[in-house]
Amino acid sequence: MEKITKILLTENEMPRKWYNIMADMPNKPLPPLHPATGKPVGPDDLSVIFPMELIKQEVSTERYIEIPDEVLDLYRTFRPSPLFRAHNLEKALGTKSKIYYKYEGGNYSGSHKANTAIPQAYYNKMEGVRRITTETGAGQWGSAMSYACNHFGLELLVFMVRVSYEQKPGRKLMMNAYNARVVPSPSTMTVAGRKVLELDPESPGSLGIAISEAMEIAAQDPYTKYSLGSVLNHVILHQTIIGEEALIQFNKAGDYPDVVIGCFGGGSNFSGISFPFLRENLTNGRQTRLVAVEPASCPKLTMGKFTYDFGDQSGMTPLLPMYTLGHNFIPDKIHAGGLRYHGAGVLVSQLRKDGFVEAKAKMQRECFEGAMLFARTEGILPAPESSYAIAGALDEARRADLEGVSKTILFNLSGHGHFDITAYEKYFEDYLPDHEATPEEIELSLANSAVPTF
Amino acid sequence: MEKITKILLTENEMPRKWYNIMADMPNKPLPPLHPATGKPVGPDDLSVIFPMELIKQEVSTERYIEIPDEVLDLYRTFRPSPLFRAHNLEKALGTKSKIYYKYEGGNYSGSHKANTAIPQAYYNKMEGVRRITTETGAGQWGSAMSYACNHFGLELLVFMVRVSYEQKPGRKLMMNAYNARVVPSPSTMTVAGRKVLELDPESPGSLGIAISEAMEIAAQDPYTKYSLGSVLNHVILHQTIIGEEALIQFNKAGDYPDVVIGCFGGGSNFSGISFPFLRENLTNGRQTRLVAVEPASCPKLTMGKFTYDFGDQSGMTPLLPMYTLGHNFIPDKIHAGGLRYHGAGVLVSQLRKDGFVEAKAKMQRECFEGAMLFARTEGILPAPESSYAIAGALDEARRADLEGVSKTILFNLSGHGHFDITAYEKYFEDYLPDHEATPEEIELSLANSAVPTF
Repeated sequence: MEKITKILLTENEMPRKWYNIMADMPNKPLPPLHPATGKPVGPDDLSVIFPMELIKQEVSTERYIEIPDEVLDLYRTFRPSPLFRAHNLEKALGTKSKIYYKYEGGNYSGSHKANTAIPQAYYNKMEGVRRITTETGAGQWGSAMSYACNHFGLELLVFMVRVSYEQKPGRKLMMNAYNARVVPSPSTMTVAGRKVLELDPESPGSLGIAISEAMEIAAQDPYTKYSLGSVLNHVILHQTIIGEEALIQFNKAGDYPDVVIGCFGGGSNFSGISFPFLRENLTNGRQTRLVAVEPASCPKLTMGKFTYDFGDQSGMTPLLPMYTLGHNFIPDKIHAGGLRYHGAGVLVSQLRKDGFVEAKAKMQRECFEGAMLFARTEGILPAPESSYAIAGALDEARRADLEGVSKTILFNLSGHGHFDITAYEKYFEDYLPDHEATPEEIELSLANSAVPTF
Repeated sequence: MEKITKILLTENEMPRKWYNIMADMPNKPLPPLHPATGKPVGPDDLSVIFPMELIKQEVSTERYIEIPDEVLDLYRTFRPSPLFRAHNLEKALGTKSKIYYKYEGGNYSGSHKANTAIPQAYYNKMEGVRRITTETGAGQWGSAMSYACNHFGLELLVFMVRVSYEQKPGRKLMMNAYNARVVPSPSTMTVAGRKVLELDPESPGSLGIAISEAMEIAAQDPYTKYSLGSVLNHVILHQTIIGEEALIQFNKAGDYPDVVIGCFGGGSNFSGISFPFLRENLTNGRQTRLVAVEPASCPKLTMGKFTYDFGDQSGMTPLLPMYTLGHNFIPDKIHAGGLRYHGAGVLVSQLRKDGFVEAKAKMQRECFEGAMLFARTEGILPAPESSYAIAGALDEARRADLEGVSKTILFNLSGHGHFDITAYEKYFEDYLPDHEATPEEIELSLANSAVPTF
């Protein structure tokens, strides 16, 4: 049999449905609560900031949801994404294991974020929305949304976490290229932003703050809605096309993963690749391990508390049942900006609580080392976020070799690092500090992040 | 029939041979001459700087040359490259024509340059070479070569044209990531560089100067060879895999191009996509037009002279029969750094002279406008170089619409613009000057670029 390096699918083999894990979860997640009443939020509460179709998806328990034709049309420009066998990396490691990666960086946005940007823009357009506000950390989500909104004729206003805005001017310009307006967050445009700036004019910002700002603007105008790039159930839903494709590709390759690994910020790329494999565990007797890798500086899954918390910094979202470091937690300025979020999505949190998902935390230097090894062997320069998944995969391969076994390892290479070259420069200059959040720090943050009780 | 957006090939469908246009050219090109003797250069003259296998390819008249397995192995990580139908661009233009593009930016290097970097590194390694020197303009070639050399265990020293070195720090860092050493050119490391700096300490550099520097270093050590990213016959040969794949892909799509378009620097991406179609013209009665698009600031094909000239600035190369602006020509600092070269490859020059290839010159603002339209419709942010091909394709579509006909247009999207964001910033700020080389300027350059006569 000839050596195969990548498993491709044609457009006709592309899945036509997203998978909803809610249908197969043994314990359904607790409901989001209205912070004023303590009652579960209903569709009407959410309709101020989201279009109805996305709200329906947010609460749906249907196993599969059809992908609209207009979305498939744009998916076709970059999907199905390739599944690679990392022959050169395996050789450099001298491992007995087989390492595969699903590459989501080959599209216009350079990351998996395009998978949900397109349907979100589409559903908003269908419901008469004219403008969207959103936040972006590393800039991948903002880039993804910029093109999608421009395609469907929507305006876009992006609040970009200040530290990323400064580290990554290329991402800002890319969003401008796709006609979006980009504002560093915290900004003076909103009450939420001004409050943060009063306390700390030098605030590096956080995803939590940027979400507050974007939601505040959206709530002021009926034709403006808000859009989130991770965490929420409908976002996770759209990302499942990654894992659905991977299942078909493994079938073609005559192989099946023992472990599936993703980096973890809010949960969208990890859930996207792993939930279809979890379905196979739950319904088809498979036993694939699912491993989320998060930064040691922002370790909600490994050191956070499972509790109701806000999804944003200023308390505008419903209360969500999740692993959290507290909505006031400001993570260290690591270069994986997309992982600097205080909480984990509701679905992953419940699954983690119930033991279906493993998690581990990693320091950024080790992840950059893994990224360099990967770049020099496989060629692709990874996004700093994706480097956490790489480090997780290297751990698995090394452990298997120590145990004298061969494993089939799949990780999600969620994006490329072409706009993260400043981070790599710091790595070369040996100026890439490690930071580990301490239990005391987290306890303090949780104490400072009180939420209403009922 | 379902709408098809991209035509993919599997690894097994990848061509196993490069195509050598020399076999089918009605008039073979004149031989390169030794500048000291005026005699045709032989393999021994070239063996100081090139490995023998590449010298053989340089002069071969065989129609097809087998691609070695080790090269195929790395090609597999990114080839076959996709052929896209530009549905969204067509819609935005309202054109009746069909526009296709072959996307060569999806590989590790972000451009077509990987196609020749890999075999060049491979053949050097096979012949015991330890170190390679090369030049790079925009940085795509240097990036491509850095990974390839690292893969095969070769050291690499890159002379990067100073203006690009300053405009594109990301490209330099990418080369560093792949373990290459990068020096801005003109440098003080070489006699050639020091001479230029004496006359103009602020020299922006040019590909011609960088080539002189790289060759000078290579000539000093038997284990160091030189490698060129364009112009030469063996480079063009390696790039023909682009057009060979496109032929298979058009066959699958049930279509065939009326015109094939590439941007033009030294000729490698243009020749790579178009020569296999030219073979079909010459041997199978097809009548596809081949259009090279060059910058108005560096218009060798449209305003240069067909004559013997040096390939580098200081006169180290053999004399090559080509369209040239004079080897002392210093092109304006346009952002398409890869097109800032004074001469056209020997094969294209002969074919242009014999009427098989069309050429046109374009200003950079118009090309950036085309690039923006392309990015907003098709998503991919193009390299400034590739924007010249886009502008050429838009011309063809618009002309066809004026004539009331529908054409099938293919262009080579030779690379992405992720490291060229500074250029886009200047475009947004409306600070992107146009520059057109004048006949007087070119005449003066040619007069100042005298070569030995015999």
